[in-house]
Amino acid sequence: MSEPIHPLFVPQRLLLGPGPSQVHPRVLQAMSTPLVGHLDPVFLHIMDEVSGMLRQVFRTGNRLTLPISGTGSAGMEAAIANMVEPGDPVIVGVNGVFGQRLAETVRRCGGEAVEVSAEWGQPLNPSEVRQALSSVTRPKALVVVHAETSTGVLQPLEELSQMAHSWGALFIADTVTSLGGTPVEVDRWEIDVAYSGTQKCLSCPPGLAPITLSDRAVEALHARRAKVQSWYLDLSMIERYWGEERVYHHTAPISMCYAIHEALRLVLEEGLEARWARHRAMSDLLLGGLESLGVLPLPDEGYRLPMLNAVRVPEGVNEAAVRSTLLNEFGIEIGAGLGPLKGKVWRIGLMGESATRASVVRLLDGLMQAMAGVD
Amino acid sequence: MSEPIHPLFVPQRLLLGPGPSQVHPRVLQAMSTPLVGHLDPVFLHIMDEVSGMLRQVFRTGNRLTLPISGTGSAGMEAAIANMVEPGDPVIVGVNGVFGQRLAETVRRCGGEAVEVSAEWGQPLNPSEVRQALSSVTRPKALVVVHAETSTGVLQPLEELSQMAHSWGALFIADTVTSLGGTPVEVDRWEIDVAYSGTQKCLSCPPGLAPITLSDRAVEALHARRAKVQSWYLDLSMIERYWGEERVYHHTAPISMCYAIHEALRLVLEEGLEARWARHRAMSDLLLGGLESLGVLPLPDEGYRLPMLNAVRVPEGVNEAAVRSTLLNEFGIEIGAGLGPLKGKVWRIGLMGESATRASVVRLLDGLMQAMAGVD
Repeated sequence: MSEPIHPLFVPQRLLLGPGPSQVHPRVLQAMSTPLVGHLDPVFLHIMDEVSGMLRQVFRTGNRLTLPISGTGSAGMEAAIANMVEPGDPVIVGVNGVFGQRLAETVRRCGGEAVEVSAEWGQPLNPSEVRQALSSVTRPKALVVVHAETSTGVLQPLEELSQMAHSWGALFIADTVTSLGGTPVEVDRWEIDVAYSGTQKCLSCPPGLAPITLSDRAVEALHARRAKVQSWYLDLSMIERYWGEERVYHHTAPISMCYAIHEALRLVLEEGLEARWARHRAMSDLLLGGLESLGVLPLPDEGYRLPMLNAVRVPEGVNEAAVRSTLLNEFGIEIGAGLGPLKGKVWRIGLMGESATRASVVRLLDGLMQAMAGVD
Repeated sequence: MSEPIHPLFVPQRLLLGPGPSQVHPRVLQAMSTPLVGHLDPVFLHIMDEVSGMLRQVFRTGNRLTLPISGTGSAGMEAAIANMVEPGDPVIVGVNGVFGQRLAETVRRCGGEAVEVSAEWGQPLNPSEVRQALSSVTRPKALVVVHAETSTGVLQPLEELSQMAHSWGALFIADTVTSLGGTPVEVDRWEIDVAYSGTQKCLSCPPGLAPITLSDRAVEALHARRAKVQSWYLDLSMIERYWGEERVYHHTAPISMCYAIHEALRLVLEEGLEARWARHRAMSDLLLGGLESLGVLPLPDEGYRLPMLNAVRVPEGVNEAAVRSTLLNEFGIEIGAGLGPLKGKVWRIGLMGESATRASVVRLLDGLMQAMAGVD
């Protein structure tokens, strides 16, 4: 026999990376509520409430609005696998890790991914998107990342949505990092599929992926020639479990549904507008403080994510050593750069419960100490 | 604005259905531990411990042993999507809902599903499996359900595993309901892929799907001609996050990993042999009591699952009314029949923390009352 494993021992962390964010004690408490069955009328009622609150947060009346039973990437795959059929041309904006992942997923679903690239740290150029749409016959969808977590870039969506629709294409947006922290207007911007994660601005542990489909998207789902290649993520079956029919598909992750129920209650208690304003104010506070340390944002003004601040590591500073000091001596997690930005940026998340004045003050203090100590 | 949503209100239930099962307070408490990041060294250590404990529970030395970030059905899809390539002939045992689902998933992965059927409530006939294996050229895999939750049938695996290997096929077993409640000997029985769920005999909330791959299965994964069609479930990427390289793939469901860590500790504290014996003893106690109420098991002796007792509803008894009385008046959940067994059987789960003398006594009392009241 191996050695017995000790109980969990988890140090206190201030989570200021690209997610997970801090979780409110009310959410942790709700999550630890004893379980009921996944077909219990009590649970079905909770599901309805979760869907209803998600509609408010996504700003939509879409019937098909629910959390997918997986993390944000499962939401991404659900969006693509349900909308894309073999041979479909799909325009994908690629200016970071999550755009790359989307293009790869389109290809794995048998679609033809037409990539529109921009430099990492820059938004997409709408005229290049238009060009890509016009370069293919009957584009099935235009897919873009609203909040590119790998670069801190906020991609404006309205113009791209109109463009997609004028070409008869569906408009799909990755709102994993934006939802709950900056405006996501599903109905007003006519987004056909938006998906998200729970561990960013909703401040819920990772494990669910909220998704919403417009009527146009639901029509496309029902009009598919081929079955959705994923059984687990097939929304034509999942909608019958979350809808009125209550047809068993898979066992919902009960405890995670308890958690998102409470997390969404907290979001709506605060109010979306107030929450967006708080994220913007805390980002401004952070960037002001960082400027005095000589740490400047990567994206241009007007394209900066308030909840995920990608900032350039100053010349001569050992970025990994600073992150490690922050984690081990100050108990603060921030994120590293990915891909071409590796070693060049830090990604500082101020998401949901993490977006507070106290977080900013602790981070600025810790960063100042860590940069001085390891210069 | 809509009405504000009230906090969760969840009645106490005794969960004796097909899962989820009762969850120990220690697991609920571990799950509500504040979060650390998914790349935090502290979390990476927890992941290693979870993998190590899963190896003990699966009785395997397989390196690639980890929980998939989804419920049991995601484990099922991961097993098939990673092992089956377009055009592969795959033999699938079908004698219940989960066998049907497997065959459907093989087809969605582009495989050619050759079904070997048995009546619902009966195990597969090994000679028919042999016939199916010999009917195709180079069968890629033989896939069977060890514990068919829809019928309560225990499928012996050793002979089928030998058969698969003598045809050069991989042997894949669904152990969602069996793991932790009855022997699952991955190495001794030479199972190439076994997957499970957390909400059955491991008595952890639903949300993760433990999976383990033999060296032979890992070779097949690495030798694929086509990429795994699911990005989210691609084990060739997931193994690099759970393995030594720690390459970011997706954000692990942190809180669920805390929960399974504690649930596995409880399993190993009890000891697997003791746990298997407890499940068998509680099933015997239940079946003895039910017999005196005229309620008899569906499967033949020797093929009965101890943790999921499928029993025939006596003539003249309104099965739905009894279930509803049990739930609403006694707070006890049991399962209904599915498919051809709808209205004909009850499925009484005695899984993990639910497999106690107290559960059996409460259930027998409640069932007696409910049957008397609604006869």
